[in-house]
Amino acid sequence: MSQVPQAPALSRLRQQLDFIVEIDKLKYILRKTRLFGSQRHENDAEHSWHLCMMAMVLQEYTPATVDVLKVMKMLLIHDLVEIDAGDTFLYDPARAAQHSVAEAAAAERIFGLLPAEQGEEMKALWQEFETGDSAEVLFARALDRLEPVLQNLSNGGGTWAEHQIPLATILQKIQGIQRGTPVLWDEIIDRMQQGIADGSVVVGVENPTTTA
Amino acid sequence: MSQVPQAPALSRLRQQLDFIVEIDKLKYILRKTRLFGSQRHENDAEHSWHLCMMAMVLQEYTPATVDVLKVMKMLLIHDLVEIDAGDTFLYDPARAAQHSVAEAAAAERIFGLLPAEQGEEMKALWQEFETGDSAEVLFARALDRLEPVLQNLSNGGGTWAEHQIPLATILQKIQGIQRGTPVLWDEIIDRMQQGIADGSVVVGVENPTTTA
Repeated sequence: MSQVPQAPALSRLRQQLDFIVEIDKLKYILRKTRLFGSQRHENDAEHSWHLCMMAMVLQEYTPATVDVLKVMKMLLIHDLVEIDAGDTFLYDPARAAQHSVAEAAAAERIFGLLPAEQGEEMKALWQEFETGDSAEVLFARALDRLEPVLQNLSNGGGTWAEHQIPLATILQKIQGIQRGTPVLWDEIIDRMQQGIADGSVVVGVENPTTTA
Repeated sequence: MSQVPQAPALSRLRQQLDFIVEIDKLKYILRKTRLFGSQRHENDAEHSWHLCMMAMVLQEYTPATVDVLKVMKMLLIHDLVEIDAGDTFLYDPARAAQHSVAEAAAAERIFGLLPAEQGEEMKALWQEFETGDSAEVLFARALDRLEPVLQNLSNGGGTWAEHQIPLATILQKIQGIQRGTPVLWDEIIDRMQQGIADGSVVVGVENPTTTA
């Protein structure tokens, strides 16, 4: 049986286009948070776009010099694994170990659609976002925490109110903002305190048993 | 009357955060094209994210050396004016002069929310995407044309079938792909011809009057 050899360049291009089509699925992955002043849940593709815009506009607030292109690449791909593993809610106590396994498998499959060296590069970038502590990671992760805070502030507390998350838990979960963008941390803490004080932002009570 | 001076840095930050909130509206601007193999219309934020991913993956197919960060910045912001001016359909004959006026006004308002030098920089980038011919513009514009082509190919012809756009018109409107990414042009022309031949892709008839 004769074999028709595949032109390497074209096979490479087809892998890349298959990847481009596959990642369309990110547009169907809904987050817990909702758009600003809205009931409509945000999807992961919209979220990733918004974070890149924030990187473009808020770069001056991260203390170290950062490679903005690297930050954007990380933000663009940071949620791709959720195509297989689903969205993880920041305040879900069951989040963690078991989910990490699913995400690692998703990274293998999804980045594995690309030509090897391109897939490896993207996987390394995703891994760095997950576990690294470069200046780029600290900035990117701060933005990833900041967007839902701003959304919740515009939505009467949003997921904090809906899931009754106490302030101490919120502050612990979003402390990456303090490390990555200290000035923004001060600003959102001000906004949270003011919102809680005037009743426009609802969070969970600190210790529910004492309120019974 | 005494005036309380505003700390410049904070006022600047507030302008930036107001801009971040305002551009959330891009997520409500629906395009004519639909997601891959889907009936669901794509919104401009999802589209902008997808184009940045394509810039990341397909960079090798643009002939000149490009500044990928600049390409991404252009792609991130290229549709922001549609928050005010609405989506323009590539094949709409009325598209053009009158819409350009609305888009220019939108650029003034939206980029004008930012601190002056940041807004000017972004407006210049948008203007370059619209009318320039740098290597970055040619690549970015090719990607902006390519995504809906791939979507239509996955949707039985998509907007080409829905609006009965003849092949000659399509080729004329998407020729930016040939200039910006020649290898991708060859590939999608192959896919279009094959799809039209096997009936999986429907386009408009060349001259409707002769078919009556």
